Amino acid sequence: MAATDFDTTLPSIRQLQNWIKEKTSVEFKLMSGDVITGKVFWQDINCVCIVDANEEKTIVWKLAIAYMKARS
Amino acid sequence: MAATDFDTTLPSIRQLQNWIKEKTSVEFKLMSGDVITGKVFWQDINCVCIVDANEEKTIVWKLAIAYMKARS
Amino acid sequence: MAATDFDTTLPSIRQLQNWIKEKTSVEFKLMSGDVITGKVFWQDINCVCIVDANEEKTIVWKLAIAYMKARS
Amino acid sequence: MAATDFDTTLPSIRQLQNWIKEKTSVEFKLMSGDVITGKVFWQDINCVCIVDANEEKTIVWKLAIAYMKARS
Amino acid sequence: MAATDFDTTLPSIRQLQNWIKEKTSVEFKLMSGDVITGKVFWQDINCVCIVDANEEKTIVWKLAIAYMKARS
Amino acid sequence: MAATDFDTTLPSIRQLQNWIKEKTSVEFKLMSGDVITGKVFWQDINCVCIVDANEEKTIVWKLAIAYMKARS
Repeated sequence: MAATDFDTTLPSIRQLQNWIKEKTSVEFKLMSGDVITGKVFWQDINCVCIVDANEEKTIVWKLAIAYMKARS
Repeated sequence: MAATDFDTTLPSIRQLQNWIKEKTSVEFKLMSGDVITGKVFWQDINCVCIVDANEEKTIVWKLAIAYMKARS
Repeated sequence: MAATDFDTTLPSIRQLQNWIKEKTSVEFKLMSGDVITGKVFWQDINCVCIVDANEEKTIVWKLAIAYMKARS
Repeated sequence: MAATDFDTTLPSIRQLQNWIKEKTSVEFKLMSGDVITGKVFWQDINCVCIVDANEEKTIVWKLAIAYMKARS
Repeated sequence: MAATDFDTTLPSIRQLQNWIKEKTSVEFKLMSGDVITGKVFWQDINCVCIVDANEEKTIVWKLAIAYMKARS
Repeated sequence: MAATDFDTTLPSIRQLQNWIKEKTSVEFKLMSGDVITGKVFWQDINCVCIVDANEEKTIVWKLAIAYMKARS
C-alpha cells in the first residue's frame, strides 16, 4: 500500500470525488508554501489534478499537501 | 498499510474521536507553518476535517501535522 | 506496517516507555521548528502525548519529530 | 510497496508517460523550493528524470515533488 | 516494513554499527536544520541515539536525517 | 518494503550504480537545503554514500534527496 490510502469509502477520498462532480472551487496549501487554486479534475493514490481558470492543469502530489478546502 | 495507522484502539485515534464527540475546540500546527483551529468534524486514515466558527471545512492531511491539541 | 515501527523491544520505543514511567522532563524538536517540552503521557504508533507544567496535552505526530531528549 | 504507487493505469503515471511520448515542456516544483524545467526523459517508482535545453539530466525524487505541470 | 529498512547487511546500517563499535565522532544534519554531534550510542529501525561530550543523549528520528558523517 | 524501492532494474537505481562504476562527479540537493558534491561510493535502500575530494564520506538519506545530477 502506498503512503496514502485510496479506499473510496474514506471521507477524504469521497470529498475529492464530490469536488470533481460538483466542479467546486478549491484551494490546496502545499508544504512547499505554494497555494494551488482551481477545480479538481481527477485524483489517484499519488496525486490530485487541479485545473485553473485558464484551463492549465497542475498535478499536486498528495504527500505534499498540508491542507485542502472548498473556496467560499 | 498507509503511512499512518487507523486502529481505533490507538490513543491517538481515540483522542480524535473524543474531540469529535465532545465538539472540543482544537488547534493543529502543520509542517507548512499553518495553524488550523476549530472543531474536528471527521477523521480517516489520510485526513482530519476541521470546521471553523464560520462553518468552513479545512481538510488537513495527517502526514502534514506537527502537533495537535485541545484549546483551553 | 505504518511509517514508524511500534515493536516494544526497540530501544526508541522502550526509551519513551521509560520516560513515561519515570515522569522524565523531555524536549521534542519538531520539523516545523516547534520545541515541545513537558512529560510524556502516552505513545502509540502514530503519536506521542506530552503534558506540560499547566497539565496541557500536546499530541505530537512521530513523523514530525526531528529529535527528542531528556532535559537535564 | 514503496511510498508512491507505480501502477501504469493511474492517471498520474500515465500523465508522465504522455509527457515522455509527447516531449512536453514541464515544470516540477520541489519541496526544497527548487523549480526544475525541461522534458521528462524517464520515470520509475522512485524518480523522474528531466532533461533540460542543454541536455543536462536532473533526477528528481518523487517524494520531493510538490507539484508538476506542462509549461504553456 | 517501516519507512526505513533495518537489514544489518545494509551498508547504511553497518556504518552506524561501526561508528558505535569504534566510538567515532559523528555529525548528523537534520531536515529541521539542527546539527547533532557526538558518538552513536545505539540505533534501531526508527531512531539513532547520539551521546555528546556531556553524556547528554539526543534521540534522532531516522526520517528526519538529511545526512550523517564521521567528523575528521 | 521501505519508503524507496531497491529493485536494480529501476532506472534510478541503475543510474546510481553507473555513477559508482564511472566515478562520475555528482551533485545532490537535499530538502534541508544542503548541496552535497563528490562521487558516489555506495548506495543501499536507505542511503547513498558520497565521497568528496578530501576522501570525506557523507551518507545521505534517500528520503531527504530533492534531486541528483551528474556535474558537467
